[in-house]
Amino acid sequence: MRNRLLAAEKVKAIDWRDGALYLLDQRILPFEETWLAYDSAAGVAEAIRSMVVRGAPAIGISAAYGVVLAARARLARGGDWRVAMEDDFALLANSRPTAVNLFWALDRMRERLERVKDGADPLAALELEAIAIHESDREANLTMAQLGVDLIRKHQGNAQAILTHCNTGALATGGFGTALGVIRGAFLEGMVEQVYADETRPWLQGSRLTAWELANEGIPVTLNADSAAAHIMKTKGVTWVIVGADRITANGDVANKIGTYQLAVCAMHHGVRFMVVAPSSTIDMDLASGDDIPIEERDGSELLSVGGHRLGAEVEAFNPVFDVTPADLIDVIVTEKGIVERPDTAKMAQLMCRKRLH
Amino acid sequence: MRNRLLAAEKVKAIDWRDGALYLLDQRILPFEETWLAYDSAAGVAEAIRSMVVRGAPAIGISAAYGVVLAARARLARGGDWRVAMEDDFALLANSRPTAVNLFWALDRMRERLERVKDGADPLAALELEAIAIHESDREANLTMAQLGVDLIRKHQGNAQAILTHCNTGALATGGFGTALGVIRGAFLEGMVEQVYADETRPWLQGSRLTAWELANEGIPVTLNADSAAAHIMKTKGVTWVIVGADRITANGDVANKIGTYQLAVCAMHHGVRFMVVAPSSTIDMDLASGDDIPIEERDGSELLSVGGHRLGAEVEAFNPVFDVTPADLIDVIVTEKGIVERPDTAKMAQLMCRKRLH
Repeated sequence: MRNRLLAAEKVKAIDWRDGALYLLDQRILPFEETWLAYDSAAGVAEAIRSMVVRGAPAIGISAAYGVVLAARARLARGGDWRVAMEDDFALLANSRPTAVNLFWALDRMRERLERVKDGADPLAALELEAIAIHESDREANLTMAQLGVDLIRKHQGNAQAILTHCNTGALATGGFGTALGVIRGAFLEGMVEQVYADETRPWLQGSRLTAWELANEGIPVTLNADSAAAHIMKTKGVTWVIVGADRITANGDVANKIGTYQLAVCAMHHGVRFMVVAPSSTIDMDLASGDDIPIEERDGSELLSVGGHRLGAEVEAFNPVFDVTPADLIDVIVTEKGIVERPDTAKMAQLMCRKRLH
Repeated sequence: MRNRLLAAEKVKAIDWRDGALYLLDQRILPFEETWLAYDSAAGVAEAIRSMVVRGAPAIGISAAYGVVLAARARLARGGDWRVAMEDDFALLANSRPTAVNLFWALDRMRERLERVKDGADPLAALELEAIAIHESDREANLTMAQLGVDLIRKHQGNAQAILTHCNTGALATGGFGTALGVIRGAFLEGMVEQVYADETRPWLQGSRLTAWELANEGIPVTLNADSAAAHIMKTKGVTWVIVGADRITANGDVANKIGTYQLAVCAMHHGVRFMVVAPSSTIDMDLASGDDIPIEERDGSELLSVGGHRLGAEVEAFNPVFDVTPADLIDVIVTEKGIVERPDTAKMAQLMCRKRLH
């Protein structure tokens, strides 16, 4: 399956080229395919904040390249550049609060920086580290796709209906995707009859990104209102809900796009299996449970208009963009280190002791 | 409370005046307040189909006036006008399939027509009947508001957070509203701290109509994505989900706007009480259960653009506009004939034997 997944690779959203970071502007997809170039940490931080790039793994990778850009600028300016870089780390860290991959990538870059030996080229070391983060995310996608497909087959190997939320594909990662990587793999193995994609209000990642990615690849996708998910579970024979994650805590609680929690409640009600797919960089063993995750609330105006088109009355709007799904609603968490069925603290700790599978 | 509700009456959507039906065009609210005039049954049927008027009770009332317009045209043409009117009844009945108030109103108009005595003026009789349907819906709203408010107070009388879906207010009825009538009443009685209004994709009845109605009256309303409902139940101390209905079957199953079912599943999960408010004209004792209700599926294009603004990729979209909430997820059904707690077939039958309370 690995080779077939690699052969099917079409979309990418992050490109590091000639010492600059290029990001496919996800705010205007699928209407325009515009790449924006960034040559500073401040620019990358703003790209993350304003959602030019989104998706927990993609944010982490972008931030890593942001550190490279920061180091280049600080080195050129001279002086105590390592101390000055703390401002850049802080700027990047403050771009979005919920996805932990961002902090994980920044920590990994800081550690690499601290390990640069006297006389070595720090910029080259950081660039190699960022590229390694990017590359290993791509590899993690492939490993997770295989593990997820094996899980689906274990329960039933025929073509089936799968429901997903938000976008977890090539646009959200360094490779094929997390949840969407599993769905892509399952399609290649003949186990996808229909993907139901929640439109994912307010930012419409489902309509704009997931539907676009899947349709481009000939994978049968049907868009639905977020509020139709339970009706679809009940009437369309959905076997799996498969989603990504922005942060997973030590007990297996999962923060993900707003709406994930109610999907999990409804999946449990219908006996539909619920799979979370995320690289281990999404797991935050420092937080005991989902109660500790900072949930980003974005401006209510995101609910009141779309693409400059006003949608309704000008009233207060509450716009939490993530929610927390407790571990006891989750059948399985798939990572590149392996899978955790019916997650709990002991099993999560055991997983995190393992080396990567690839 | 009755007088205070009457004093607070501001919005109306249906007006019968000078022998014509005037409908406030709900497709373009709240941006434009345009009244459209109808002088034929075909025009009214098209207004219902295209959602100039929507909301189960409002559809029923409009169809009743449509019958008056049909009779006037048929009488003017002469011949066997009563037989010819069957075409008009069929046209109106075929405008939308799910809300039973439409068929109830048409049956009531047909019965009235059959009771017109020789020598009496059939047109005057039909007009009086349509006005009576309209007026009694308004009265039913008042009765239901009182019953619903009493129920809320029975559990706790302080200001609390209530979540609602779609629009069930003055725009959806002949009066103050069903679910929104209860919420209006509860606000007047000091028992509403905050109304959370689901935006209600794809037609945005929440953003466009409910938020507009409540904001106009100074009732504290916060808009949210449909997918945030469970997160709000969990984090905002919601005590009641209150919704309307388009058809209620003999066992107490409820067809209502898509998304109602998953709200009920999530309410049960969180121990939040779930109230359905609808006049008895919404109850269809001819159907044993919700499995028998025809669920309208509208064109997928309604999900792909809003106000001419394209939202995402051009893919297949599944657009069921109603779903069925089984009786066992419902705490109470409020009608003008009285309330039914934990509805089942026996209790629904008992309710329907009663006379109206008002």
